[in-house]
Amino acid sequence: MDRRSFLKTSALGGTAAAATTLAAPAYATGKRTLTMVTTWGRGLAGVFDAAQRTADSITAMSDGMLTVDVKAAGELVGAFEVFDAVTAGQADMYHAADYYFVGQHPGYAFFTSVPFGMSAQELANWYYHGDGMKMHDELGEIFGLKSFLGGNTGAQAGGWFAKEINGPEDFNGLKFRMPGLGGKALGKLGASVQNLPGSEVYQALASGAIDGTEWIGPWADEKAGFQEITKFYYTAGFHEPGAGLSVACNREVFNSLSPAHQKIVEIASAETHQWNLAQFLNNNGAALLRLQSAGVKTLQFPDAVWDAFGKASAEVHAENMGDEIYKNIYDSYTASMAASSGWIQKSEGAYRAQRDRVLG
Amino acid sequence: MDRRSFLKTSALGGTAAAATTLAAPAYATGKRTLTMVTTWGRGLAGVFDAAQRTADSITAMSDGMLTVDVKAAGELVGAFEVFDAVTAGQADMYHAADYYFVGQHPGYAFFTSVPFGMSAQELANWYYHGDGMKMHDELGEIFGLKSFLGGNTGAQAGGWFAKEINGPEDFNGLKFRMPGLGGKALGKLGASVQNLPGSEVYQALASGAIDGTEWIGPWADEKAGFQEITKFYYTAGFHEPGAGLSVACNREVFNSLSPAHQKIVEIASAETHQWNLAQFLNNNGAALLRLQSAGVKTLQFPDAVWDAFGKASAEVHAENMGDEIYKNIYDSYTASMAASSGWIQKSEGAYRAQRDRVLG
Repeated sequence: MDRRSFLKTSALGGTAAAATTLAAPAYATGKRTLTMVTTWGRGLAGVFDAAQRTADSITAMSDGMLTVDVKAAGELVGAFEVFDAVTAGQADMYHAADYYFVGQHPGYAFFTSVPFGMSAQELANWYYHGDGMKMHDELGEIFGLKSFLGGNTGAQAGGWFAKEINGPEDFNGLKFRMPGLGGKALGKLGASVQNLPGSEVYQALASGAIDGTEWIGPWADEKAGFQEITKFYYTAGFHEPGAGLSVACNREVFNSLSPAHQKIVEIASAETHQWNLAQFLNNNGAALLRLQSAGVKTLQFPDAVWDAFGKASAEVHAENMGDEIYKNIYDSYTASMAASSGWIQKSEGAYRAQRDRVLG
Repeated sequence: MDRRSFLKTSALGGTAAAATTLAAPAYATGKRTLTMVTTWGRGLAGVFDAAQRTADSITAMSDGMLTVDVKAAGELVGAFEVFDAVTAGQADMYHAADYYFVGQHPGYAFFTSVPFGMSAQELANWYYHGDGMKMHDELGEIFGLKSFLGGNTGAQAGGWFAKEINGPEDFNGLKFRMPGLGGKALGKLGASVQNLPGSEVYQALASGAIDGTEWIGPWADEKAGFQEITKFYYTAGFHEPGAGLSVACNREVFNSLSPAHQKIVEIASAETHQWNLAQFLNNNGAALLRLQSAGVKTLQFPDAVWDAFGKASAEVHAENMGDEIYKNIYDSYTASMAASSGWIQKSEGAYRAQRDRVLG
């Protein structure tokens, strides 16, 4: 699905008008139900779990004074209508991957993941102790939202291919499913990039309508069944190295909450970021072993392919630099990534390499 | 300070008697102040911050119905008396590194960090989605505690040395400060291991009473001022690859809280685990750059040294295997680490290596 064209034709896409259309009553006391719309199918592993976890924590910590009612995609509004539904006050909050909303503002990409960007840990460093959270909030303010990170898939896999990739030229003409800025970058290598919703990917791969696909990682990919069709699995990818998920409240609704309830929403979302990342990584570890036992060959792209990914990713970022907010976020993000990355590589990175070598 | 000898001589060390000595009143309503004792000096960067963060989140989310009063080490009880103070009901909860309490039970080491053990992320995977949290709780139950992770320093640096380390023989006779199981392992290489409290380390290093020291990482180490004495900094260490901090409540006090307040304590602690890890890593990144500008030489131990660390660490673990609980935790921990590690290395690890190479 092409997100940009959908969002540009929606009534509220890209405008700041929505924030003022809602006359939110100020609830001082009394029980209250908040409706959370999501971009996820009901029960979708990991991502729907993150929405439900956040909702359950809010409900439990507020002793039911704030009860969050989670709606799967399509139950109240369609998956990609959640942003507009919350800015308009049709729903109180959403759980989504904010890069679905680059049509509203390209800066939203940074709060999910960008090509050659941060790992999940680097994102947390920047978000909670650098300028990330502040910048997310500034972006939300434009649209009448109060935004928080509320989940993370970890580094997404490079994806499933019908044959091995030996050089960047192998992407020329390849029909490959990859959304977002990563997909734009892949297009620069000559790939025919498809933006299929998750529910259509298996069939497209099985029928040969696409030659390959990325999805999330071993846990979700195994559930999707791609190992039944192809056995070449590139475990590392350039496109989403630590994909954050977001909780966003209608800003007037959020402001009408008591300080204690505001804090509950904030901390519940942040705790879910960690819980969900650990969920993906824990389940990915076990699923990878099962996939390997089932004959899946795990591979890494050669250096020349990574060089081409890097060049294409830089071009994609450069195309957005005319937007001042995007550039400000990019500058903050890349400076934080460089500083975080240096220490992590020299400490945990070096340790892990030695541990793997010594323990074998 | 030698923790084991301190704990063994304390009245309650190593016994399960404490849980029954407290007659906790069941508060159903009304405001309540919980006293949190800690192993940290007031304001100590990172670690005291984690205690305060947890306390503030609990106070704010409960709208002051549970107000947590944080006591620094020595304000109510001494740093290493917090475990016994909470089991006895003298204080309601503690914030500490649980490996200080290996005298009570050696299994507590796993909830901080063990030699050649988990990274902070691997610990979170096991804790929140494997058996870690359950095993922590089972250990706490023996002593009348309800325990949660509530902070993490990330991978600790290998430490500061007066000269370069070229082989394992260079540790023979070296006077080096390193607490815990890591220190025991280092002793097997012939080091004269010292367990000095933080406040004495700088002076000991300056006077030559010790030849070197590990502490935490660039941020805390820079504040301690070790770069004024020596310029050889080994950034990766084997001894604490992702040191968790813990919140533990007196179990009767915890059980007397409402379900909403219990959930607030649980989620506040977990959120602090992420927040504190990001705090250390964010600040370590910036501090490393400053240390390098100040002429500190960052180094890695050669492979032969890592081999010796690995052998010694395995011996230390083997010495504890006679304890059934320790062995059960060890088995669960190492199985989870192997599964987590495989995927992380093949995805984020491979990505980071390529990103570093491509971006230069």
